Amino acid sequence: MRTRVTDMFGVEFPIFAFSHCRDVVAAVSRAGGMGVLGALYFTPEELEMELKWIDDHVDGRPYGVDVVMPASYAGADLGVDSAEDLLARLQGMIPDGHRAFVDKLLEEHGVPPLSAGGEAGRALLGWTDATARPQVEVALRHPIALLANALGPPPADVVEQAHAHGVKVAALASTPRHAIKQVEVGVDVVVAQGTEAGGHTGEISTMVLIPQVVDAVDVPVLAAGGIGNGRQMAAGMALGAEGVWTGSIWLTVEEADTPEMARRRILEATSRDTVRSRSWTGKPARLLKNEWTDAWEAADSPGTLPMPLQFMLVSDALRRIGRSDAAELATFPAGQIIGAMNSVRPARDVVFGLVEEYVETMERLGRLTGE
Amino acid sequence: MRTRVTDMFGVEFPIFAFSHCRDVVAAVSRAGGMGVLGALYFTPEELEMELKWIDDHVDGRPYGVDVVMPASYAGADLGVDSAEDLLARLQGMIPDGHRAFVDKLLEEHGVPPLSAGGEAGRALLGWTDATARPQVEVALRHPIALLANALGPPPADVVEQAHAHGVKVAALASTPRHAIKQVEVGVDVVVAQGTEAGGHTGEISTMVLIPQVVDAVDVPVLAAGGIGNGRQMAAGMALGAEGVWTGSIWLTVEEADTPEMARRRILEATSRDTVRSRSWTGKPARLLKNEWTDAWEAADSPGTLPMPLQFMLVSDALRRIGRSDAAELATFPAGQIIGAMNSVRPARDVVFGLVEEYVETMERLGRLTGE
Repeated sequence: MRTRVTDMFGVEFPIFAFSHCRDVVAAVSRAGGMGVLGALYFTPEELEMELKWIDDHVDGRPYGVDVVMPASYAGADLGVDSAEDLLARLQGMIPDGHRAFVDKLLEEHGVPPLSAGGEAGRALLGWTDATARPQVEVALRHPIALLANALGPPPADVVEQAHAHGVKVAALASTPRHAIKQVEVGVDVVVAQGTEAGGHTGEISTMVLIPQVVDAVDVPVLAAGGIGNGRQMAAGMALGAEGVWTGSIWLTVEEADTPEMARRRILEATSRDTVRSRSWTGKPARLLKNEWTDAWEAADSPGTLPMPLQFMLVSDALRRIGRSDAAELATFPAGQIIGAMNSVRPARDVVFGLVEEYVETMERLGRLTGE
Repeated sequence: MRTRVTDMFGVEFPIFAFSHCRDVVAAVSRAGGMGVLGALYFTPEELEMELKWIDDHVDGRPYGVDVVMPASYAGADLGVDSAEDLLARLQGMIPDGHRAFVDKLLEEHGVPPLSAGGEAGRALLGWTDATARPQVEVALRHPIALLANALGPPPADVVEQAHAHGVKVAALASTPRHAIKQVEVGVDVVVAQGTEAGGHTGEISTMVLIPQVVDAVDVPVLAAGGIGNGRQMAAGMALGAEGVWTGSIWLTVEEADTPEMARRRILEATSRDTVRSRSWTGKPARLLKNEWTDAWEAADSPGTLPMPLQFMLVSDALRRIGRSDAAELATFPAGQIIGAMNSVRPARDVVFGLVEEYVETMERLGRLTGE
């Protein structure tokens, strides 16, 4: 299979695999696709270790790094450069009523406090310019092939910096207007992501969105959202994409370090068990629907806070839940495709399965028109 | 192009066009697709006239009729067979507060009353078993090729009745479980409809839903939701469908009797201008998002009523709005594809355009794999 994307990155298959797990990233790249490590949860020091590990295990194949530099967030206009100062200013912006709501919810579900206390240093993660830039610095010291930005167009100087290192830049778009803005700042590949995708996502479905984005920009487009098998990959390519961007399907591969509770929940879930919710980060993201997401929609909910305040508010709570037995509150980003994820396989088998079913699909379509 | 669906109906292209306008239905069938008339808004006498007109203008080509027989609705358990008695009983179930909310909303927007008063006889439309059955009786007296049910599995005796007339039966499904139930009552074709579709729709996107439904049933599946061009048609077929079911794209064809205000709004709209809302019928339906749909989500909304009470509550209001200048309140069923509808063409050109782009897409995909 050959598209502008396979040429651009020298990959065998235009299959991009977003994962927070280095083992998955390396396994997909070794199988002929392109692993992309989500940097969000790592400090710069940790990211350095993760990328060093990938460099040692990827057999020289290309891989990428995904950061989150939202175009807008609370505190962006404070003019604070240091992450510590920004964090301190932002902490003061969280209303007491919101803290009380979270405390009460956890108490009702019997979630114990963390023995070691919170980790305030992680409360911002890479959600801001100030915290994502150090991640970019680290990433560009490694032989990465792609830098992706998960929330809108990256800052123009970051694009220039990447290009100066010979690194291509991708950005996720959920409307044709987003895609045009991204190309204007120099993005090389647009990831057009439909509403069915896990994590931060827009309203327009993959089926409707992809042709609109393909028609709006000249750079190659990857189809994202709802792509988990070879028929869906073929559909994405039929819509005009030159590759596919996948995420949720890697949560259940053998290599993934997904917590056991989450993995079990994904294997059981149907495609109706996700919801677009602001309860994770303050921006709409598709999450596993459960008592956590329901609570933020309930009549007594104080409403969610803007990014990054919401995640600062809930990050300790989510960590406490993850270490408790309160499975009913344990949510995480997940796309509608989880309804079709019913088995645990090596990442390599998932890549090859996508390609095989893609080829079968093309043969079937050929027969329909008598080719 | 040949699938089990083209064989079943003897059509040239497996393109189904749902429309409330007889001119569109006949034009699509004459062009080699299959027009399907939505019977909902017609009394049995009117439906008889519409179908007679189609019989005279369809040049012997196959066409279908779509009715609404919801599996569940308020009043279904009252044991009332006559539409008049049912209507009277149901009217008493609408709270005064809801009536006051609608009156206030229209007053705020300066919508005048109808000079001729309301048309209570239309308030139930075909939303119930009692009102849809007479439509089925009328439809089966005509040489229709397909009877479709828009909301869940049709009653088993209706399926038998259709089959006894040599008429195939289709039903819309928004989950694999729905599809299995429909096949159990004898449905011949499942229309798997993604959340991006206009009108009554579920939560799962077309991209995610179609393969799940195709894998769950043995009968042919039509892909619905977000299909408006040949790339999207090819994507639907790649996902495993044997044809496509389209709706919104026929609202702006030359033949359509769409009110001018609505047509203009569709041509201007983006794909973000729709919303899934219960404010039309009480069941979730994708509508044009505007001040009407917003009002039912606002803090002072009394909430919507179950089908068919909600439509009984709002039917006069919607008719009054349609005849007023309050364009900001004029909503109607519309899918996300309206963002890509920017021109007015004859229905025949739309059919041929779908087919041409489908063929081009297959050629492009063939080149990707070097075929």
